[in-house]
Amino acid sequence: MHPNRALIGVPGGRADLATPALVLDLAVFGRNVATMAAATRASGLALRPHAKTHKCKAIAARQLAAGAIGLCVAKTGEAEALADTPGLRSLLVTSPVIGASALARLAGVAARVPELLVAVDSDAGARALSAAASAAGVRIGAVVDIDPGIHRTGVPGAEAAAALAKSVANLPGLWFAGLQCYAGHAQHIEDYAVRGEIAAMALADMATAAALLRADGLPPPLLTGGGTGTFAQEAGLGVLTELQAGSYIFMDVEYDAVALEAGGAGPFGAALFVDARVISANCADFVTVDAGYKAFATDGPKPKVAGGAPAGSEFAFMGDEHGAVFAALPLGALVRLQVPHCDPTVNLHDVIHVLDGDTLVDIWPVEGRGRSA
Amino acid sequence: MHPNRALIGVPGGRADLATPALVLDLAVFGRNVATMAAATRASGLALRPHAKTHKCKAIAARQLAAGAIGLCVAKTGEAEALADTPGLRSLLVTSPVIGASALARLAGVAARVPELLVAVDSDAGARALSAAASAAGVRIGAVVDIDPGIHRTGVPGAEAAAALAKSVANLPGLWFAGLQCYAGHAQHIEDYAVRGEIAAMALADMATAAALLRADGLPPPLLTGGGTGTFAQEAGLGVLTELQAGSYIFMDVEYDAVALEAGGAGPFGAALFVDARVISANCADFVTVDAGYKAFATDGPKPKVAGGAPAGSEFAFMGDEHGAVFAALPLGALVRLQVPHCDPTVNLHDVIHVLDGDTLVDIWPVEGRGRSA
Repeated sequence: MHPNRALIGVPGGRADLATPALVLDLAVFGRNVATMAAATRASGLALRPHAKTHKCKAIAARQLAAGAIGLCVAKTGEAEALADTPGLRSLLVTSPVIGASALARLAGVAARVPELLVAVDSDAGARALSAAASAAGVRIGAVVDIDPGIHRTGVPGAEAAAALAKSVANLPGLWFAGLQCYAGHAQHIEDYAVRGEIAAMALADMATAAALLRADGLPPPLLTGGGTGTFAQEAGLGVLTELQAGSYIFMDVEYDAVALEAGGAGPFGAALFVDARVISANCADFVTVDAGYKAFATDGPKPKVAGGAPAGSEFAFMGDEHGAVFAALPLGALVRLQVPHCDPTVNLHDVIHVLDGDTLVDIWPVEGRGRSA
Repeated sequence: MHPNRALIGVPGGRADLATPALVLDLAVFGRNVATMAAATRASGLALRPHAKTHKCKAIAARQLAAGAIGLCVAKTGEAEALADTPGLRSLLVTSPVIGASALARLAGVAARVPELLVAVDSDAGARALSAAASAAGVRIGAVVDIDPGIHRTGVPGAEAAAALAKSVANLPGLWFAGLQCYAGHAQHIEDYAVRGEIAAMALADMATAAALLRADGLPPPLLTGGGTGTFAQEAGLGVLTELQAGSYIFMDVEYDAVALEAGGAGPFGAALFVDARVISANCADFVTVDAGYKAFATDGPKPKVAGGAPAGSEFAFMGDEHGAVFAALPLGALVRLQVPHCDPTVNLHDVIHVLDGDTLVDIWPVEGRGRSA
């Protein structure tokens, strides 16, 4: 049993948390979920949130209950972990899956969900997916991934996309489910207008590919992509039919640094933090807390002090297990730190502590944690 | 069941691993364990390896079987996870533990191991530890932590250490077990001589504190500290009675960058890697593999290509789930990547795949993974 489970429902129980603890402000999270659901509904887009952000069935179920038409995952292991989320009708694996054992596992997931969609970006990959689906007696929707200019995955350009779409449409065990283009390189561009231009450039190939396929009698059922950093702009382009945003539920220091609406901070609030505790206080300038590289992702900005210390107090990493908070605080004090980059930070933690103010109301397992394979 | 478990014992089964997979070269690992055991024995030091590196009972048991006198852990959760390691007689928690619930859990660990030692660096912390031990009816050895100059944890200087030692010796439920000083800031200094000087400066306070306490009739039973980067130098100083090194079992890109012996690379070999798979190959300059920020620590250097691609091929991160390997490789090919910083990389993975050549011989759970609280 998790050491913090005994605190559930205890008023003010947050003070006694075993730390470091990944904590969710339930009220802010709930507003973020509702806000994105309303925004996509208003713009005529379907919402298929990316679950690589949270890897958590309790969160996925809340997104689906708020109107999401399905989920995205990045990897086979995540698909396995989240396949039985209540309310899940359609699951999209957004990266190509290669390798016989992984493909056999994907076919197993296809038998557990009403609809499984998988990104493909090569003829060889599509043929292997087809073979796995056929062998298992299932049908999988192939989504042709278009390179937005990152060169990470995807076919290069509209004509290659249309050609691969026609190819998968003829493969046994597969059906052509649509096109995907995710402008990951645009999401954190600081200038709102430039960010929109980059996203639009990426989606131009998708629009052309869709037109080619419509003209050839193979209209793409889905046009999927987009992220938290570009959703407002992409909604206005009229290309996508559904949005894959993930980080909007938590927000993080990285997304807080860019304006998500023209001239404004955007409609989402910071909901995910690590509560850490002062475990050494022998220095004049700072105290040491019990959270370091094993509690926060380190690929982006630093964690940001969000409570428990004077506003503007800085955090610095002090190795694997510890951090410094530049403030005068007593031993045992709790410091709240906004997570720097949410996806890989969640991936460090087995559970999410759900807080209503200072009361722990639930502990949600992160079922997909570490399921990168 | 882990998806790779079916491959155990299959000759050449590595080719079919679900990837990314954290893999251990068993032969190199075994040599590293034996080499450090022999080196510490030859220098008259006891070896108490730091298990925060591996968090794995199977590895801890092998270190103990090779002659280690006990283990270090960094956190309460690790102590709980590793307490029943076969052969474990003495367990040292190397960071101060603060907070009533964590202290109660520590007292629970004390009832499960022959000897539990815990670092303290404040009177208030020692009194809280004493209260928890007394309440549980156990005795805990308090190890006075001395600040080596990092200001992360520890009391400042020899006199403060001696004073705290005398204080803990009189507290119910505690006994004075010794002094700790870990020169973490010296470990990765490139110049061998400078590294040795920094380590020696840090240990000077410990030597003075020990002399003060001997003169006062309270000789410290243990003088514990040291790391993989400084073990050869610290062994020659005659201060420490035991060595806490951890990373020597795996080696990583970070430790490979420094010479561990005067004029030489040192006696340890790289044993820990992530095997990743090519999942997209649509570009001329590089291929995309299925390992990114969620498979490697990002606080240090980059992962290093160690097999499956031409020597010298570079790796670059491509986000949470992917990396680029600058080589021409076919879809499905395996690339072996040496881990950049071993401790926080292991902390991302639930299991370690144990390889004898290309045959998977076992899968070891990482029981302490994520147990930072």
